[in-house]
Amino acid sequence: MSVVDNIVSIRLDDANDALVLLDQTLLPNETKYIVLKSAEQIFEAISLLRVRGAPAIGITAAYGVYLCTKHVQTDSYEEFAAEFKKVKDYLASSRPTAVNLFWALNRMEEKLESVKDLPIAEIKTILRDEAQAIRDEDEAMCREIGENALSLLKPGMGLLTHCNAGTIATARYGTAQAPFHLGQERGYNFKAYVDETRPLLQGSRLTAWELQASGVDVTLVCDNMVSQLMRNGWIDACLVGCDRVAANGDTANKIGTATLSIVAKHYGIPVYVCGPTTTIDMDCPTGDDIEIELRKESEISELWYEKRMAPEGIKAYNPAFDVTPNELITAIVTDRGIVYPPFDVNLAKIMKDVK
Amino acid sequence: MSVVDNIVSIRLDDANDALVLLDQTLLPNETKYIVLKSAEQIFEAISLLRVRGAPAIGITAAYGVYLCTKHVQTDSYEEFAAEFKKVKDYLASSRPTAVNLFWALNRMEEKLESVKDLPIAEIKTILRDEAQAIRDEDEAMCREIGENALSLLKPGMGLLTHCNAGTIATARYGTAQAPFHLGQERGYNFKAYVDETRPLLQGSRLTAWELQASGVDVTLVCDNMVSQLMRNGWIDACLVGCDRVAANGDTANKIGTATLSIVAKHYGIPVYVCGPTTTIDMDCPTGDDIEIELRKESEISELWYEKRMAPEGIKAYNPAFDVTPNELITAIVTDRGIVYPPFDVNLAKIMKDVK
Repeated sequence: MSVVDNIVSIRLDDANDALVLLDQTLLPNETKYIVLKSAEQIFEAISLLRVRGAPAIGITAAYGVYLCTKHVQTDSYEEFAAEFKKVKDYLASSRPTAVNLFWALNRMEEKLESVKDLPIAEIKTILRDEAQAIRDEDEAMCREIGENALSLLKPGMGLLTHCNAGTIATARYGTAQAPFHLGQERGYNFKAYVDETRPLLQGSRLTAWELQASGVDVTLVCDNMVSQLMRNGWIDACLVGCDRVAANGDTANKIGTATLSIVAKHYGIPVYVCGPTTTIDMDCPTGDDIEIELRKESEISELWYEKRMAPEGIKAYNPAFDVTPNELITAIVTDRGIVYPPFDVNLAKIMKDVK
Repeated sequence: MSVVDNIVSIRLDDANDALVLLDQTLLPNETKYIVLKSAEQIFEAISLLRVRGAPAIGITAAYGVYLCTKHVQTDSYEEFAAEFKKVKDYLASSRPTAVNLFWALNRMEEKLESVKDLPIAEIKTILRDEAQAIRDEDEAMCREIGENALSLLKPGMGLLTHCNAGTIATARYGTAQAPFHLGQERGYNFKAYVDETRPLLQGSRLTAWELQASGVDVTLVCDNMVSQLMRNGWIDACLVGCDRVAANGDTANKIGTATLSIVAKHYGIPVYVCGPTTTIDMDCPTGDDIEIELRKESEISELWYEKRMAPEGIKAYNPAFDVTPNELITAIVTDRGIVYPPFDVNLAKIMKDVK
C-alpha cells in the first residue's frame, strides 16, 4: 500500500449502495469516514463542506447521482431520466457557486442522454462507469501533475506549500500536494513547510494533516514567516495550486500566494504553480480580469477563536484570493506538461488541442 | 483632550499610593484599568503581561519601586537603601529577559545612590521625580519619532503597520504607531491597515484596538494579504517598529516584518522603521549577529483557538522575530532624526554623541 492510500477522501461502496467520505470538517482533530446512502445525506455533506475541493465535490456529485438512481424501478427511459433529473437538480443546489459540481452533473446527464436507447439496467452500469471515469481521470490528471512537478525537484529538498490542493480535495494526490505524496512513495524525503493559510487555516488544518498522514516530514509556520524560512536557506522551491490561470499566466489562487511568490522571487527561489489544464482560462486575458471574491470580515476577527480577537466594530478586508503576476511564476505545471515563460505563447500552445 | 488621551496605559496616582494600569491581557474585549498598590500586585502585572512593551514595563517598574518604598519609615539611608534594594530585586525578577526593566530599575538605584546624603523625605521626592522623568522622556522620545515620521507622510495616505509598537507599549504615542496618533490629532485622516501579526495577534488584539480608540480609520487584514493591499494601490507607506537595529541598519523586529518589507519593495512602497536611538546597537555589526528567539510551537497550533488547529504531533517553527536587511528599509525614523542609507555611515553619525 502506498503512503497516500492512508487517506481515501471519496470511495464508492457499490455493494452497499453507499458513498464513503472523509469528513473534512472534523480535521485535524478527528479522522472519520462517513457513510452516505441518500441524496439528502450527500447534499448535506457537500453543503456543510464535509467534502471540499472542486474535483472532490464533482466526484461526490457524480457518484451521488448514480447511487441515488440505481434503484429506480422502471423500464421507461423517460421515467428514469425524470428521476435522474430530480436528483441532479437537487444535488446541484447544494453549493450554488461550485462550477465543478455542475460540470460533473452535466457530464453525467450528457452520458445518460447519449445512451437513452439502451435498457435501463445497462444505462445504470454506464452511469456508474462514467462517475468512476470522472474520478479516475482526476486521479490520472493529478498524478501527471505530480510526475511533472517531481521532475523539477530533487530528493531532500525543502519545499514550501500554501493552502490545500491535496489528496483530500481531489480523487487522489492533489495538485500542488501531488509531488509531496509521489515523492514520499519514492523515498525523496522532502522537508515540507506548510504555512497556516489565514484566515481559514487550510494549511494547518488540512495540508499539514494530510502530509503528516502520508508520512512526510512536515513543519508548520505562520504565513508571515516565509521570509525567515527562506533567509535560513531551508526552502528550495514553492509549490502552490491555482483557482484560475489567465492566458498570460497571471494566476489567481488562495490569498497569500502572491505575497509568498514575491518573497520567493526576492530570494531567487522558484515558484511552481500546479494545476490541471481545466483551470487555464484562455478567455481571460490577464489577472486584472479576474474578480476577487470578498468574504465575511468575521472570518478574520472571530472564526475559530474562543473569543473575539479584534475589537468590536473593526473593519476587515478579507479577499479569498490574490493574483500572482506571471513574472513571479517560474513554471506552470499541468497534466499536459510543464509550461515556461513566455506564458502567453506557451499556454496557447499547450491549450491548442484541449477541448 | 487629544485623541490619544483616550488611552493612558500607565498612570501614577500618588495621592492614593497607587499605580493605575490598563490591563492589556483583556484587550480587545474589555478596557479595564487596574489599581496596583503592593509590590506583589506590580510583580504580577508585569509577569502576567498585563503591561507589555519594553518602555511600558520600564516605566511601571520605576513607578513601582518608588511607590513601594515611599512609606518606609526611617531616617537611616542604609535602612532605606536596603528596603529599596529588596523591592528592586523583587520587581527585577518579574520578567527575567526584559532589558528595559533592569535598565529602569538600575537608573532608579543610581539616582538613589547619587543623593544618599540628603534627608530621606527629599530622597523619596527625588525618586518620584526620576520615575516621572523616565516616563516623560519616553513620551518625548515617542513624540519626536512621531513628528519625524509625520514629516514623511501626507494627509489621507494609506499606511500599513505590523504588530504593536503603540501608545499602550510606551508612555504615550508609541513608536511605529506614533505618527498615526499624531496624525489623528492633526486631522490627517490616514487610512490605517493593520495586519493581524500571527501567531500572537498583537495587530488585531492591540494595534487595531488602540488606533480605533484613537479614532483612526482602521482596517484589519491577515498577514498574507499585504500583496493584495498593495496591488490595490491602497498603501502609500509601511511603518514598523524595531527590537534591535544593527550598525548597518539591518533590523530585527516582530516576525513578519521582513516578509512585509520585501513585498513593499516589490511594489516600490517605502518602509519606515520607527524606534528610539536606544534600540540602535552599534556593537552589533549586522543582522546576522542578531540571535532570533524561538518560541513555543503551541502558539501556532493551539493558542487562542477553541480546539487544536493543527494535527497532534506536528512540528512548528515559531521565530519571534525576523531580520529585515537594510536594503529593504527606506529610512530609520528615530527621536534624533531620520536616518537614510547608507545606514552604516549615517547611523554612526547620529549615534556619535548618544551616551
